[in-house]
Amino acid sequence: METAPGTLADFLTLGWDRLIRGVGDRHAAARHPTLATVDSAGAPTQRTVVLRGAVRAEARIEVHTDAASAKVAHLTRDPRVAFHVWDDKANLQLRLTAHAEILVGTLDQWERLPEAARRVYGGHPLPGSPVPEAEAFQPSPYPDRYTVLQCHLDTMELLHLGRDLHRRAVFARASGWSGQWIAP
Amino acid sequence: METAPGTLADFLTLGWDRLIRGVGDRHAAARHPTLATVDSAGAPTQRTVVLRGAVRAEARIEVHTDAASAKVAHLTRDPRVAFHVWDDKANLQLRLTAHAEILVGTLDQWERLPEAARRVYGGHPLPGSPVPEAEAFQPSPYPDRYTVLQCHLDTMELLHLGRDLHRRAVFARASGWSGQWIAP
Repeated sequence: METAPGTLADFLTLGWDRLIRGVGDRHAAARHPTLATVDSAGAPTQRTVVLRGAVRAEARIEVHTDAASAKVAHLTRDPRVAFHVWDDKANLQLRLTAHAEILVGTLDQWERLPEAARRVYGGHPLPGSPVPEAEAFQPSPYPDRYTVLQCHLDTMELLHLGRDLHRRAVFARASGWSGQWIAP
Repeated sequence: METAPGTLADFLTLGWDRLIRGVGDRHAAARHPTLATVDSAGAPTQRTVVLRGAVRAEARIEVHTDAASAKVAHLTRDPRVAFHVWDDKANLQLRLTAHAEILVGTLDQWERLPEAARRVYGGHPLPGSPVPEAEAFQPSPYPDRYTVLQCHLDTMELLHLGRDLHRRAVFARASGWSGQWIAP
C-alpha cells in the first residue's frame, strides 16, 4: 500500500483492519505482536505473543499465556503493557498501550484449543526456571495455568511510511478515539 | 535451521551471528529490532529501530536517533532498554536487556551518512508534536540532533523453536556470558 488514508478516521480503521487480520490469518504481521511489560525492578522486557482476539467496539485485544510465565507476574504488579507490530505489507507501524486484565481461562475455552496449543500452557519445571540441559523440560498441558490477558487499549499510534511522506497519528480512549496527527 | 546448537557456547554464537548480520544486511531480521523504553510515568513503550552496530567483544549494540525523539527523553531519565528480534529464518527469538549511553553524533559520523539517512535527524516541528494535518511537517537534516545510543548489554536470552524441542537459555554480563539453560 503506497498511500495512507488521508483522514484520521480512515487511518484508525486501517490500524484495526490490520490488527483484526492478525487474529484470523497466521501469516499476517499482527498475528505476532511484541508485548512489553515492566519487570519487578521497573525495567522494560519484551517477548513475542500470539494475537487471539481484537474487538474494535470495545477497544480491546486478547492474548493467552501460561499463568506461571514471567509476564503474568509482571502484570500482577503493574498492568500497563505496550504492543508493537511492524506490518511490512502495509508499511505501517502500530504502537498500542493498554491495561491488561488477567483472567483465568475457562474450561470451555480450554476445550476449544487444539491439542498442540494446549502444550504451551503447563510444563515442568516452570518457564524460566534453570534446567541442567535444554532437554530437561517436560511439556504437560495443564488447564489451570491457561490464562487470558484482556488488554484494554489506552492509545493506538500509527506510523505509515509513504514514499514521499511519513504520516503519524495517535488515537486515545480518553479523547473518544478521535485522533491527532503528529509530526513523524 | 531446524536444529539449535547443542552447547551454550554455540547458542550464544548463533545469537551474535544473527545480530551482526542485521548490521550489514538490510533484509536480516535483526536489521530492525523493537526497542522498549519506559516513559516518564514508568510505562513501557516500543518502536522499531535500525541496528547500526553490534560488537560482541564489548557486548554492545548501537542505534542512531534524533535527539528530540521521545526515546531520548525516556533514556535521559532511565537508561534501561530492551531489544526484541524474532528471526524467522533461524526460528529464533532474541531478547536483550541493556543500558543505553546517549552520545552526541560526531561530524565525522554525520558526513558518512547518506543524504536520505540524514533526513531523519531533524525536522520541524519536533517529532511527536501535534500538527494540523499529516503534511504539516518539514524534514530538515540537522546534525546537532544526530544522536548515537551505545547500548551495553546486560543479558541476552535466546529461544529456539525446534520441531520437537524448544531450547531457551539466558546469558548475562554479570556471569561472564557463560549462560544457563532455562525451561521454555
